[in-house]
Amino acid sequence: MASELKNDRFIRASLRQAVDVTPVWMMRQAGRYLPEYRETRKRAGSFLNLCKTPELACEVTLQPLKRYPLDAAILFSDILTIPDAMGLGLNLVEEVGPQFDSPVRTAGEIKALSVPDPESDLGYVMNAIRLIRKELDGSVPLIGFAGSPWTLATYMVEGGPSKEFGLVKGLMYDDPESMHHLLGVLADSIILYLNAQIAAGVQAVMIFDTWGGILTTTSFQQFSLHYMQKIVSQLNRQYDGHVIPVILFTKGGGDWVKDIATTGCDAIGVDWTKNIGIVRKEVGDQVALQGNLDPCVLYASPEVIQQEVAAVLESYGRGHGHVFNLGHGIHPQIDPENVAVFINAVHELSGQYHI
Amino acid sequence: MASELKNDRFIRASLRQAVDVTPVWMMRQAGRYLPEYRETRKRAGSFLNLCKTPELACEVTLQPLKRYPLDAAILFSDILTIPDAMGLGLNLVEEVGPQFDSPVRTAGEIKALSVPDPESDLGYVMNAIRLIRKELDGSVPLIGFAGSPWTLATYMVEGGPSKEFGLVKGLMYDDPESMHHLLGVLADSIILYLNAQIAAGVQAVMIFDTWGGILTTTSFQQFSLHYMQKIVSQLNRQYDGHVIPVILFTKGGGDWVKDIATTGCDAIGVDWTKNIGIVRKEVGDQVALQGNLDPCVLYASPEVIQQEVAAVLESYGRGHGHVFNLGHGIHPQIDPENVAVFINAVHELSGQYHI
Repeated sequence: MASELKNDRFIRASLRQAVDVTPVWMMRQAGRYLPEYRETRKRAGSFLNLCKTPELACEVTLQPLKRYPLDAAILFSDILTIPDAMGLGLNLVEEVGPQFDSPVRTAGEIKALSVPDPESDLGYVMNAIRLIRKELDGSVPLIGFAGSPWTLATYMVEGGPSKEFGLVKGLMYDDPESMHHLLGVLADSIILYLNAQIAAGVQAVMIFDTWGGILTTTSFQQFSLHYMQKIVSQLNRQYDGHVIPVILFTKGGGDWVKDIATTGCDAIGVDWTKNIGIVRKEVGDQVALQGNLDPCVLYASPEVIQQEVAAVLESYGRGHGHVFNLGHGIHPQIDPENVAVFINAVHELSGQYHI
Repeated sequence: MASELKNDRFIRASLRQAVDVTPVWMMRQAGRYLPEYRETRKRAGSFLNLCKTPELACEVTLQPLKRYPLDAAILFSDILTIPDAMGLGLNLVEEVGPQFDSPVRTAGEIKALSVPDPESDLGYVMNAIRLIRKELDGSVPLIGFAGSPWTLATYMVEGGPSKEFGLVKGLMYDDPESMHHLLGVLADSIILYLNAQIAAGVQAVMIFDTWGGILTTTSFQQFSLHYMQKIVSQLNRQYDGHVIPVILFTKGGGDWVKDIATTGCDAIGVDWTKNIGIVRKEVGDQVALQGNLDPCVLYASPEVIQQEVAAVLESYGRGHGHVFNLGHGIHPQIDPENVAVFINAVHELSGQYHI
């Protein structure tokens, strides 16, 4: 399985198979903390153009791999490509965040939405994937991704980032039927989108449920988890003779890991607010865990970074099923030198847990 | 105890004593959702002037009590009065949030801070309290409050609101000694400030740890909880023959309630992301609980509001020690009619749990 990969640690750990050292990658590893990213981003003119130009998306996807011995690449893209393909008119303004020209707020607006065709409406993503796979040449696996239905819905209803989520949660409480319709269309879209990514060449997929953590336990189950479960059950988990690991990440969802594990996903992302050793005890052998260094640790000295990496490794403990990552995306202000310290620390300090 | 109060349900429930129905109040109950508040706010010229003019602060504190049968009043003020009194130059811009002219970011800037004198530097708060107590005339208790040391530190270091908290958490990881010094000065300031509020007439105090939830479990204990514990241990818990309940509220701190209970506080605020019945099982009879309706429920119809209130009451279950509240402040967009539905539902539906 995944036998053509020169480094398959990430795949193996995601499937709870034995590895020599703990694999590591970073959310937003292709991003603003890298000067070479900022240079390409400038050349692209806009963030959205960077996403939509396969050659440039490929270029920035590979940049962190040239600097660091990362164990996986992740497609450079944005979770809002799907609502953009649905015709909401996406503007991605760095520092401000995403903005939609046409938010979706009424039952009528929701009913009018239709499922985009991945190859014709989102072909630039599939082209980027094919190009990246060619360039990677089997060195490390490529991770594809999508936002969760609930998370996409928050942006589509609010029209952009929000602090209180009054519009989307108001709609959820006041007109649950319309909200379920919206989430159903999104789930169907994401299934097609991720299966197309798999067909184009991604070797694992991750679903970012960035805003699941703003829900009550009951609402999370009904409005977020239910739809992630539907997606997991309809993904092509075997492709071309290889198993495609599926990772779910609900930020702020540390209390719900047992429920998340029941979806049948292979791995669960964990943010930094919960001790990963405690989470491991809760889920047992059901799933692998991915995380969970506080991204702010990377502002500190090399000694502190090494110490905090050691603490996360020790918290997870001996045995397999751990993919090291930050608990959230790397911040744009981080010194690239500190990233090298972090990545090396994971590899150097983790061997003892895999003997 | 608290015998002069015509309605002492809030005090009794906070101390886990018997009540006829569950008491209820709302965080930010004196606020922008009320047209009469917006009128006074306009007259005040600025939010800060509203805080600093005792007559106006008194006026808005009483406004929600004229509309609704609330079981407590809460002082109208802001958690950032202390850093303002320390000379950081506070500007409170509605919609944008607080901004400091002089953030505190270096060891030297931190060392230069000193503890404000409550009566001379924050006399406007004490004057407002004395005025409000006179106007309340024993109808319901008055709650005083302060931000937690960690939460105040986040604003003081970041200089305003933040999404990623890179500066303050960077300082915490990179120079923990300076961070501890800052938190120590803040804890000392808050102790004096809350004891002065108690002397001026508040009948309960609440500490808002709005940003404790962005920390890891270990950092929460060292950089937030430790200092809240210090404050709790040095407050005048008995004043003028009455017990002064102390409530701690760490937003996103649902996993740490057992630790928070060990501070010796009387009650713990719980946000809406955790089931209050599960939290109750964790803390047992140690403390009362305050919460935890999702503030977004108030966007829905009366039927849904009643249903969700009933669900929270049922989740907490029979017996005492429950103060009903939202899981966070009421949103400015909420219809005041819906608030009436909410408050009445708590009183009408809770009697059966106290028989």
